[in-house]
Amino acid sequence: MERTVKLAWAAFFLALTTAGCGTQAAPAAGDAPAFDEDGRLRFPADYREWVYVSSGLDMTYEGEEGGANQDRPPMFTNVFVNPAGYRAFMETGAWPNGTTFVLEVRESASEGSINKDGRFQTGLAAIEAEVKDQARFPKGWGFFAFGRDTEPAEAIATTQDCYSCHSEHAALDHTFIQFYPTLLDAARKKGVLADAP
Amino acid sequence: MERTVKLAWAAFFLALTTAGCGTQAAPAAGDAPAFDEDGRLRFPADYREWVYVSSGLDMTYEGEEGGANQDRPPMFTNVFVNPAGYRAFMETGAWPNGTTFVLEVRESASEGSINKDGRFQTGLAAIEAEVKDQARFPKGWGFFAFGRDTEPAEAIATTQDCYSCHSEHAALDHTFIQFYPTLLDAARKKGVLADAP
Repeated sequence: MERTVKLAWAAFFLALTTAGCGTQAAPAAGDAPAFDEDGRLRFPADYREWVYVSSGLDMTYEGEEGGANQDRPPMFTNVFVNPAGYRAFMETGAWPNGTTFVLEVRESASEGSINKDGRFQTGLAAIEAEVKDQARFPKGWGFFAFGRDTEPAEAIATTQDCYSCHSEHAALDHTFIQFYPTLLDAARKKGVLADAP
Repeated sequence: MERTVKLAWAAFFLALTTAGCGTQAAPAAGDAPAFDEDGRLRFPADYREWVYVSSGLDMTYEGEEGGANQDRPPMFTNVFVNPAGYRAFMETGAWPNGTTFVLEVRESASEGSINKDGRFQTGLAAIEAEVKDQARFPKGWGFFAFGRDTEPAEAIATTQDCYSCHSEHAALDHTFIQFYPTLLDAARKKGVLADAP
């Protein structure tokens, strides 16, 4: 009897310690990122209930083509972060492993209903994600493009611009908090910004 | 001893049943709106952790002056709803009493850091709120303007435009979900929209 109990505990601890290792498909705890057996990021289905970070309209960047002058209505970008990552950041000023940002791109319209000027958000255009996992990703963070799909997404190749741009230009640990006023305030209060952007 | 216990329970139930009545200052349960002894709405300090609804840029409306052509940079408006109201809406397609919307107005900038075009959000300009409470407000909902202050705010007089405009033009129960794509989708799935806006 005692031996059976010990074996059960051993199996339990083995399951605990191997969950999330290597290429095993791990169920995510709470809002932690979940990966399938091929290392693809599962779509974070409830990201709209995560913590809102900020929005931009048709933001373009140095060295990038396009922007507001393109032949289409401007696009909004809404940024969300998973609650566990957010809470840790507000407490410590640093992003823990498992932090997941979602960038939601939405089309815009004007002169709809009683609106006569300015822009409001309409259909979903694309969803992208950025996940911190220093064991999984060579550069500490991985980038993923879901488009308008909810299938698991492969990590974008580390040769792509998103990695170098976030590494070189983001104000804090690959995150563009210079464009996120509430996170910027929090980082300043924590004194974690080397140089104010 | 038994009598003491009974009295303690009686006091407990009395406290429960009188909380939130009349002009008593009631502590809010969870994310429910809290009012002070003068019926002013206490500032919802954690609204940035509520559920994000949508954003607009410099939206103006029929019969309204101003907008994108004013002599100032355009303003973003971010809308949030308290989680309890959101959860009820997603389940039923209706807003329960206690539902609280927050409208956060933010200034915008361009050409900051590596941004070269489009707009991103910067300083806080104003915060407004809309609360559903059919017992408290003659029109079912009350409107509040905090500005950049966090002191309790009096309800805006019901003669002001916000009441008539939300009553006449909002797609569902005084809420402008025609400008909130995810809530609009949810309402359509629930079949609660009389006319698609």
